[in-house]
Amino acid sequence: MEMEKCACKRSKKRTDEELKPLFNRLSRVEGQIRGIRRMLEEDAYCVDVMLQISAANKALSAISAELLKSHINTCVVEDVSSGKTETAAELAMLVERLMKG
Amino acid sequence: MEMEKCACKRSKKRTDEELKPLFNRLSRVEGQIRGIRRMLEEDAYCVDVMLQISAANKALSAISAELLKSHINTCVVEDVSSGKTETAAELAMLVERLMKG
Amino acid sequence: MEMEKCACKRSKKRTDEELKPLFNRLSRVEGQIRGIRRMLEEDAYCVDVMLQISAANKALSAISAELLKSHINTCVVEDVSSGKTETAAELAMLVERLMKG
Amino acid sequence: MEMEKCACKRSKKRTDEELKPLFNRLSRVEGQIRGIRRMLEEDAYCVDVMLQISAANKALSAISAELLKSHINTCVVEDVSSGKTETAAELAMLVERLMKG
Repeated sequence: MEMEKCACKRSKKRTDEELKPLFNRLSRVEGQIRGIRRMLEEDAYCVDVMLQISAANKALSAISAELLKSHINTCVVEDVSSGKTETAAELAMLVERLMKG
Repeated sequence: MEMEKCACKRSKKRTDEELKPLFNRLSRVEGQIRGIRRMLEEDAYCVDVMLQISAANKALSAISAELLKSHINTCVVEDVSSGKTETAAELAMLVERLMKG
Repeated sequence: MEMEKCACKRSKKRTDEELKPLFNRLSRVEGQIRGIRRMLEEDAYCVDVMLQISAANKALSAISAELLKSHINTCVVEDVSSGKTETAAELAMLVERLMKG
Repeated sequence: MEMEKCACKRSKKRTDEELKPLFNRLSRVEGQIRGIRRMLEEDAYCVDVMLQISAANKALSAISAELLKSHINTCVVEDVSSGKTETAAELAMLVERLMKG
């Protein structure tokens, strides 16, 4: 798919101030996933496991929302400003895909 | 809210070629909503009503996805290209809001 | 599909107390859809149209959530209590489908 | 909240045949999360990170869908059959919560 092909060629330098909260959020998600594993090992009630999965999903989506906001306000703005409108087209495709869930 | 305030001041001229499929899709949604009303009036089974509501939701979301793609590729590209980066910030907020469902 | 085939044979009697709020909500959705049509006719800004679509989607989903709650607490409970466990299997399929968006 | 309170008192014995695919899926999610961390460490392009997060979200949701199907067809059917209709009410609340995303 075009979106990934073009993305592979690119990278994004993030400052420590940007990375720290992202890594913190990710550590929390990793803890939640370990929790789900432990719950299954310990015969936890289905409803509890599903609520924990729902919490992990929300935490992951919050990371993605953070990245998307930053992506639009940095990469998209910079690229479109300098005439690379394909970053806008790529964004349109990405958002469509993310919205499908 | 900032997003709406700034949006009110703006409008978007659409060509007949853009409007026609949007109106067609909207007519289909209107038919689906009338269908839901009729189903409730005729004691339809809950599951059938929910499947019809789900279809109407999907049809509405498809209109929104179409508008979003067009918005990014026209309004956002034009505004950011001419230095109005607040349209990108507005987009970031919009997408966050749409993703919450 | 099995789900719809079996559903067609069934119906659900709703009291006026149940129907009234459903019809009220549906009337609101119909008003929102008319609003979307008018916005497109009047060259409304994309973001405004998308926010209106999002509101209509939420209103429709709220009707579906209401029906689902009632379906589980009436049809599912009654059928499963009297040994018709296929209503539970049907519910499992329905929820999976609704969750896909 | 009532849902969690009542759930804490309960557990669900799963067979090895049920657990194995759940643990396999969970291992895949853990790999995806490690991938996201590595991507951020290696300055991966925002779009790639978001696509990876989206994949992890989908994998987690698939586990939840699996658990929900099994929950309805076992716990809910058994409890409702033996007169414990509060498991149906609990399910209605759970589904409402899961659908909010």
